[in-house]
Amino acid sequence: MAVVGALGQVGSTLLGVLEERSFPVAELRPLTSPRSAGGEVRFAGEVLRAEEAKPESFRGIEIAFFAAGDLVSRTLAPEAVRRGAVVVDKSNAFRMDPSVPLVVPEVNGEALAGHRGIVASPNCSTIQLVVALEPLHREAGLREVTVATYQSVSGTGAEALAELQAQLAGSGATRVYPHPIAGNVLPHCDAFLPDGSTREERKLVDETRKILGLPDLPVAAFAARVPVRVGHAEAVWAGFERPIPPERARAVLARAPGLRVLDRPESCEYPTPLLAEGGDLVLVGRIRPDPVRPNGLALWVAADNLRKGAATNAVQIAEALAAGGLL
Amino acid sequence: MAVVGALGQVGSTLLGVLEERSFPVAELRPLTSPRSAGGEVRFAGEVLRAEEAKPESFRGIEIAFFAAGDLVSRTLAPEAVRRGAVVVDKSNAFRMDPSVPLVVPEVNGEALAGHRGIVASPNCSTIQLVVALEPLHREAGLREVTVATYQSVSGTGAEALAELQAQLAGSGATRVYPHPIAGNVLPHCDAFLPDGSTREERKLVDETRKILGLPDLPVAAFAARVPVRVGHAEAVWAGFERPIPPERARAVLARAPGLRVLDRPESCEYPTPLLAEGGDLVLVGRIRPDPVRPNGLALWVAADNLRKGAATNAVQIAEALAAGGLL
Repeated sequence: MAVVGALGQVGSTLLGVLEERSFPVAELRPLTSPRSAGGEVRFAGEVLRAEEAKPESFRGIEIAFFAAGDLVSRTLAPEAVRRGAVVVDKSNAFRMDPSVPLVVPEVNGEALAGHRGIVASPNCSTIQLVVALEPLHREAGLREVTVATYQSVSGTGAEALAELQAQLAGSGATRVYPHPIAGNVLPHCDAFLPDGSTREERKLVDETRKILGLPDLPVAAFAARVPVRVGHAEAVWAGFERPIPPERARAVLARAPGLRVLDRPESCEYPTPLLAEGGDLVLVGRIRPDPVRPNGLALWVAADNLRKGAATNAVQIAEALAAGGLL
Repeated sequence: MAVVGALGQVGSTLLGVLEERSFPVAELRPLTSPRSAGGEVRFAGEVLRAEEAKPESFRGIEIAFFAAGDLVSRTLAPEAVRRGAVVVDKSNAFRMDPSVPLVVPEVNGEALAGHRGIVASPNCSTIQLVVALEPLHREAGLREVTVATYQSVSGTGAEALAELQAQLAGSGATRVYPHPIAGNVLPHCDAFLPDGSTREERKLVDETRKILGLPDLPVAAFAARVPVRVGHAEAVWAGFERPIPPERARAVLARAPGLRVLDRPESCEYPTPLLAEGGDLVLVGRIRPDPVRPNGLALWVAADNLRKGAATNAVQIAEALAAGGLL
């Protein structure tokens, strides 16, 4: 097994998740950029040295996780596939490629069967959204989605976390973000596109449609960064073809995989980023009627963006590939 | 002039705003709870002592600002009116009373003419929403609103700010909020109602309808508390009767009172709570088409919840009452 970006935030979380879930790893090859080559990686009681990721690094590799940037995936993932590896890619490089399955195993695991060497794992904010919406879609037929996100700083990376920490300690410096993030909210996740939306918002729209198999689903997405370290939250409104009262939605979600319903507001029980942090479940609560949309529901969703939003979903993809004889 | 709650967060901001705007104050009577009586208030270069607010405190008073809780307003505002004062009330006590105007001067100042002694100032999160929506409504006919809020801790009060500060410094104690607010997001502003919404969300719906004179307007509101000291932000989607392209919306908002359009995402120019803090304008940006609603627009709104969301709006009401000969 190879892990590209093994020293990064998602890469190191991924190694931890592989250990926790006792994923069978005969040999681990931690790969990284030339700059970080030689860095130490701890896995299964051993200390390994990360090597520079090159085309030849993938010789003899069965599964290659890519948790580096789009460019690294675009360059090296085809090389890994050429050498016989199945790539589970966390980057944005191949997500919207029609020949690449974009998979959240508990939502559309069946899409894995058609893979041609690369499987893409969706963006963090999409994963938790579709885990919550798919069971409701199956029950009542999804017709439209509006989502506002409250995204944590770890979604930007380790340098952004350091910037938040420094600002909380009194530094006014801004390097990663264009404005202070401590004590602030930035309506700006990832880069702006010509139409005025951000890439993050575009991903929420496109990936949700692809994963749910609803290419024309109307989706309105607004993404904002909040001064939280780990854990994304989302306010979601969804309209359905058929009525789905909140009690029914709670029952449907309670028996769906990968979810935990936390919805007793009278006891202050509802999802928060802090409650989601460190876990693999998508937390859903504040389920109530939405007066604006036909057969509408409002909900509030939180998940650990580094785990279920990234590392855990990638490992679950590998588990499903192995279980399905698709490696 | 009397200010009830003069030692509180909104009360002290209000005194500052009165000074800044050179509102004519012949004599200031700072009033407070029995517990805080004797506390010092600085106004116009003088140090005054706050007295306990009682029915007789309002003798000879022309304008009485109420910036204490609902109960204080419910008890003492009618006493003030009985003694000849016009009450500008920041509490929730009378906002939905059909005989009490609920006023944001630049939006529905004409409603002041019908007052019977009490004028209510809306909730902070409503004020910035209607300042942004009303010019668009006049232009294109508002049909529906969906809003997700990112509300600051000062909206809960000074104790909540101290709790945030203590948590940021390492204390895990929670007293004001049921969960930590530092590094977290709470989908919980004000108390929960039997229908699963919060009072804050209910206020957003009811007050928006009343101020805009659209009693049946469909409004879906989701309110969340974020670890920001001052300044509320809102992601807003609105559907209209007639098409209103973003360029038109920007032009309409740019010439509307009380607003500032900050909408050049390519230069990272957009509203944030930190940019709004300390100012009296409602900042609007990220204006773009909303693909879900008919003739839909998405926007992002930020304002200082202690100033325009509370103190400044109350002073503007008093100014409009004075200018209209309505005192």
